Amino acid sequence: MADDAGEAEEMTSICSGLVINIGTLNKKTIQSMFLAGKKSNMLGHPVVLDPVGAGASKLRTDTANKLLDEVKFTVIRGNISEIKTLAIGSGTTKGVDADVADMVTDETLDNVIAFAKEFSRKTGAVIAITGAIDLVAGENMAYIIRNGHPIMSKITGSGCMLTVMTAAYVASNPGSVIKAAAASVCAMGLCGELAFLKCKTAGGGNSSYRNYLIDEVYNLNAADLTRGAKYEVR
Amino acid sequence: MADDAGEAEEMTSICSGLVINIGTLNKKTIQSMFLAGKKSNMLGHPVVLDPVGAGASKLRTDTANKLLDEVKFTVIRGNISEIKTLAIGSGTTKGVDADVADMVTDETLDNVIAFAKEFSRKTGAVIAITGAIDLVAGENMAYIIRNGHPIMSKITGSGCMLTVMTAAYVASNPGSVIKAAAASVCAMGLCGELAFLKCKTAGGGNSSYRNYLIDEVYNLNAADLTRGAKYEVR
Amino acid sequence: MADDAGEAEEMTSICSGLVINIGTLNKKTIQSMFLAGKKSNMLGHPVVLDPVGAGASKLRTDTANKLLDEVKFTVIRGNISEIKTLAIGSGTTKGVDADVADMVTDETLDNVIAFAKEFSRKTGAVIAITGAIDLVAGENMAYIIRNGHPIMSKITGSGCMLTVMTAAYVASNPGSVIKAAAASVCAMGLCGELAFLKCKTAGGGNSSYRNYLIDEVYNLNAADLTRGAKYEVR
Repeated sequence: MADDAGEAEEMTSICSGLVINIGTLNKKTIQSMFLAGKKSNMLGHPVVLDPVGAGASKLRTDTANKLLDEVKFTVIRGNISEIKTLAIGSGTTKGVDADVADMVTDETLDNVIAFAKEFSRKTGAVIAITGAIDLVAGENMAYIIRNGHPIMSKITGSGCMLTVMTAAYVASNPGSVIKAAAASVCAMGLCGELAFLKCKTAGGGNSSYRNYLIDEVYNLNAADLTRGAKYEVR
Repeated sequence: MADDAGEAEEMTSICSGLVINIGTLNKKTIQSMFLAGKKSNMLGHPVVLDPVGAGASKLRTDTANKLLDEVKFTVIRGNISEIKTLAIGSGTTKGVDADVADMVTDETLDNVIAFAKEFSRKTGAVIAITGAIDLVAGENMAYIIRNGHPIMSKITGSGCMLTVMTAAYVASNPGSVIKAAAASVCAMGLCGELAFLKCKTAGGGNSSYRNYLIDEVYNLNAADLTRGAKYEVR
Repeated sequence: MADDAGEAEEMTSICSGLVINIGTLNKKTIQSMFLAGKKSNMLGHPVVLDPVGAGASKLRTDTANKLLDEVKFTVIRGNISEIKTLAIGSGTTKGVDADVADMVTDETLDNVIAFAKEFSRKTGAVIAITGAIDLVAGENMAYIIRNGHPIMSKITGSGCMLTVMTAAYVASNPGSVIKAAAASVCAMGLCGELAFLKCKTAGGGNSSYRNYLIDEVYNLNAADLTRGAKYEVR
């Protein structure tokens, strides 16, 4: 959250991990992203990229590509259109939402897994592609995760929240990046399901839902996560 | 939300409408407002102005006036002090709140209607003036709307939320600008009433109220809006 | 909230008090802080400093120290690490949280009181140091306040909210700065306790807690504050 170039390196030094999120990109903060990213690399801290809206403007696509060139990322987390834009230059991002043409379904799943493993090989990062079906892929294996609820797309920021959780999980489990990333995706999805149940009982809308979602993340424990996680490995 | 001059035109091109809100005005983003506004005009997209705090500083008044000169607005939505500042240079804005001296009452209503129609004639925009009594005026007709609840002024951002809803309603109903704008004002006011009832039952304060308000907007359907809208035409 | 140098002086002129919060510090807004601070001094308005993260980066520490040199503050409110950084250059701030090594306990309390009175003497400001035990000190007396609940540290922004409340209380009671500042600290702590009770009953997490906290501030009245405030004077 400290985005001035005059303190980005110093601030990231007292953190255990870094998220670079290009959601509110502007020319003043781009320099700070590079400074913080390179400093974190030097310190051996995990760095997670959230390429918000890559594909929606030249500035976003170019900035995300340049970040990939100059910073080594531990995890890259985005929707399928954003990740396709970075990997093969062909995503058709609609602002911050994935394009329906790119959607991951059971029919396209095997292709997407192969594509994600290949992008992981190329970047050295774990690739997390989230949507109706979530995917967390390394070079040789991928977690397919079926937690979550459609109402999660009706609030702003659930993707950004997940990216920050992923960084926290990975920073706390430095030896198990892919497992930690997959656990964070399961956790956010499971909390999304629990929040939906609470919202339905209480009769609220998307603003109440957002509160319940954060509440569930706050209250989640390891036993509930283990019991509620829905994943397979391919 | 994409306010860098390097992408403002591109980002507005993939949207169906644009809101220019000068609430957190600064020199870096002013240029982006003009770029996005002109591009939307060129594409025939509706453009809505929220002149937050016009009258409270020279920078705000000058920027709003220059926007009116160079961008064609579909709707202008503000409180009475902001609109008076733009129309006749005499509003006495107190930051982002209307001055009590400018307040719209049943006694001053006919004068304000005439004034709003005249400003609509001058700008070609539908003029929405919101407060205890709301007004949505075209050149020859005005909706007087009596939905809403005083507690709406106890949360931050209800005006900004309404402006965005107005843009969404107008973008979805391109042939009926004034009707769509009036419907959005009724909808926000009605949701304000429903949220107050919920807040009273549940015993909350203004933060819970804000959640209930957004919940009600999320849950609103056409039948409830038709039943609950309180308006007359003059 | 109006942070452009082109309007900072004008905007602060129509306010009754000013808060300078360096939480999202960047080079563009630093100039506005000095302009607004000096203008408020000239007008005799109370000015409250929240030195967020002082000690965590050179930019923050230097900016806070320069503000202390050029602007006269009515109240300075921070955690113990931030205040130590400003007073004696030795705090070990961990981002925006106090370092555990600096923590105020019953054992260190007398030392901290003496230190705060001395810093008040040096700056002419009332010094509010908040944490598990809160302290509001003038040159010759200090309020020790034991309201509050540990869960308050699990939400973002409770310190910033308090600083703004302190400014509002002080602006409304210009003849009683230290009393007003102490009352605001009691009020926030008491609301934190009431919100915890509500949260426990309703079974929520930290997001619901944040809403309840703001609700309680909204609903607080003088009788409840008088009854619930837990303080002593030393």
